[in-house]
Amino acid sequence: MMERFKKQLNFLIEIDQVKNILRMTSIADGSRRENDAEHSWSLAMMAVLFAEYVDDQIDLLKVIKMVLIHDLVEIHAGDTFCFDEAGMQDKEAREQASADKIFGLLEHDQGQELRQLWEEFESCETLEAEYAAMLDRLQPLIMNYINEGGTWAQHQISVEQVYKRNQITLEKGPQVFKDFIHEVIEECVAKGYIK
Amino acid sequence: MMERFKKQLNFLIEIDQVKNILRMTSIADGSRRENDAEHSWSLAMMAVLFAEYVDDQIDLLKVIKMVLIHDLVEIHAGDTFCFDEAGMQDKEAREQASADKIFGLLEHDQGQELRQLWEEFESCETLEAEYAAMLDRLQPLIMNYINEGGTWAQHQISVEQVYKRNQITLEKGPQVFKDFIHEVIEECVAKGYIK
Repeated sequence: MMERFKKQLNFLIEIDQVKNILRMTSIADGSRRENDAEHSWSLAMMAVLFAEYVDDQIDLLKVIKMVLIHDLVEIHAGDTFCFDEAGMQDKEAREQASADKIFGLLEHDQGQELRQLWEEFESCETLEAEYAAMLDRLQPLIMNYINEGGTWAQHQISVEQVYKRNQITLEKGPQVFKDFIHEVIEECVAKGYIK
Repeated sequence: MMERFKKQLNFLIEIDQVKNILRMTSIADGSRRENDAEHSWSLAMMAVLFAEYVDDQIDLLKVIKMVLIHDLVEIHAGDTFCFDEAGMQDKEAREQASADKIFGLLEHDQGQELRQLWEEFESCETLEAEYAAMLDRLQPLIMNYINEGGTWAQHQISVEQVYKRNQITLEKGPQVFKDFIHEVIEECVAKGYIK
């Protein structure tokens, strides 16, 4: 049992690297970019807070596990800015190779369990993966909204790009998410934060 | 519904401040101190990874919610170093006042639900709270272990203090945690990292 535990410790130490992977988006006070561990914690908090708006049948524990691990593959693949079309093209191949390394650190059964959760998140076909994806897009939208457009303004992102990025929520999300997204986009366009 | 949602957004923005609350312990690579959001993410990951060692009856979702929110009160109360005896004396009063403010940002029902979870964590009387407390003590122990004694060495912490800090795990934790803690303490004492 100690051997299994030591693999888990080694995995924990390895994944601690996400604390040094900076995303494009800032933390709420705008003072610096946020890292993947902080972002994942925020998504988990949002999953808890907003669970009341989504289908009762959604397995919240599964959603939280997904958001906790969804960015681990960035340890070897790096963070790909969601509006970087060239980067998005080889993102999957880079992340699959990274997943082999990261989840391979654990004993096979546990590594496979977490990898399957990550694959499920990436495929975005189950209710849990859809809710996780909505949160993953909503969190930077909130951060940009309260930071004068944040990465939208910095990278001259267009209204079409922001709508496309939040498409899953606008199609399948709870009404309160949809209303909020429309409100944010309209306000940010009016203020010139979004092209 | 939008009013309730806006309170949740305001709460999310407010609790984002934990990303600026530095703990005494470093991240795994030793390059800097870690903040409360990163620490909470690590505890949630550990709760998932180590669930196989604890009682099947433990509600893992509840444990994860607890570790995600357990340090929110530090937004107004600050981080109290666990070996600071003077600081530990008024910690409860400071944190209760902070909890009033933080959880009071949400609609009453949701604020109370989260506050009760935090109170349960603090009381440390249920299986879930005990498991969460074990993780909260195990995580900095791992970080100190791989950082040449970390805060133990920096603050000349004694072997008695480290044993006392991990008492709940040594009394009630899974065997693999106990064995690991003994191994770490013995090695760190031998290397002079713990007095």
